[in-house]
Amino acid sequence: MTDRVTLWHGEPSRSSMTKLLLDELGAPYDVVPLDLKAGDQLKPEFLAINPMGKVPTIRHNGAIVAETVAIFIYLADAFPQARLAPAIGDPDRGPYLRWLVFYGACFEPAIMDRFLKREPAQRATSPYADYDTTIAALRAALTPGPYILGDRFSAADLLWGAALDWTTRFGLVETTPEIAACLARHRARPAVRAQPAAS
Amino acid sequence: MTDRVTLWHGEPSRSSMTKLLLDELGAPYDVVPLDLKAGDQLKPEFLAINPMGKVPTIRHNGAIVAETVAIFIYLADAFPQARLAPAIGDPDRGPYLRWLVFYGACFEPAIMDRFLKREPAQRATSPYADYDTTIAALRAALTPGPYILGDRFSAADLLWGAALDWTTRFGLVETTPEIAACLARHRARPAVRAQPAAS
Repeated sequence: MTDRVTLWHGEPSRSSMTKLLLDELGAPYDVVPLDLKAGDQLKPEFLAINPMGKVPTIRHNGAIVAETVAIFIYLADAFPQARLAPAIGDPDRGPYLRWLVFYGACFEPAIMDRFLKREPAQRATSPYADYDTTIAALRAALTPGPYILGDRFSAADLLWGAALDWTTRFGLVETTPEIAACLARHRARPAVRAQPAAS
Repeated sequence: MTDRVTLWHGEPSRSSMTKLLLDELGAPYDVVPLDLKAGDQLKPEFLAINPMGKVPTIRHNGAIVAETVAIFIYLADAFPQARLAPAIGDPDRGPYLRWLVFYGACFEPAIMDRFLKREPAQRATSPYADYDTTIAALRAALTPGPYILGDRFSAADLLWGAALDWTTRFGLVETTPEIAACLARHRARPAVRAQPAAS
């Protein structure tokens, strides 16, 4: 389990969230930088690893893992000494998985619809309902806090802090009081403060 | 860990996939039926449990879990005797999580775009690229088979069999050879054959 992690990474991109997680976990890792503007992510050698042509993608103990949420669940479990994941059997395990998966399955596609100024789908057919419903559900999950799981910090908070950081900067999410509190806690973390400002 | 699972369920809906998983796991469960056409999922008592207003939603050992992918990961780990999830530390764990998360983060939003006949987003900005890229990545993951993890059946195959069952029926996904093979294996499973035909 102590094999080094390889992270295919580009800046600025969503892979900064995985890099931050690796820092918080204290996991040993090597970065393979991709120049996203030059299209490195669409070159055959990278598409052979991840046909979606996107970062983050990691390799650990010989296996390739892609999708930010899968990587977060995988890594936080693989480096348990950092205590960023409730263990299987812990009562917090289900809510932890729920709010990690919510990021990829609801928040990201709702944000894309907002970014593209699309009409929302009918709520009954869409797994992510619509932007307003998704943001309201997230705000409720952040309340009363301080963390998604209450008093317990986890990899889910790291994901949401990082996600709300870039989406509020881009004006895609409004900085409501509970989101401001989440961001303030996130930005105070040493690993976040050590990141390059633009990422 | 042997507490009964409560499943909020409506037919026809995506919660049939979770019901199938519970059957395959041999997990003890009780169904709370929701009449989706009557709008039960938008009543205050259900929104208090899941503000997204959708099924599946489960309760187990006092905790609420929502999002199909989170529920699949949670339940397959909570009932390990069914051997539907590679354990933490198993080399298959990362790919298993990858292809489960891919369903919620890529396949579902790509299918929604297809259903709504939307123009795809720019590939560089969208976490699910576009419909064609997503389906091509899925087809590659199903090859050479027989299962997503090669020789090993897992909860990921159950999810994909069920997802491809309804999306091919609705004409949202083409029944290519590897998808046909996936569907044939899926439909041969006793738990699938025991389902009501319409679900």
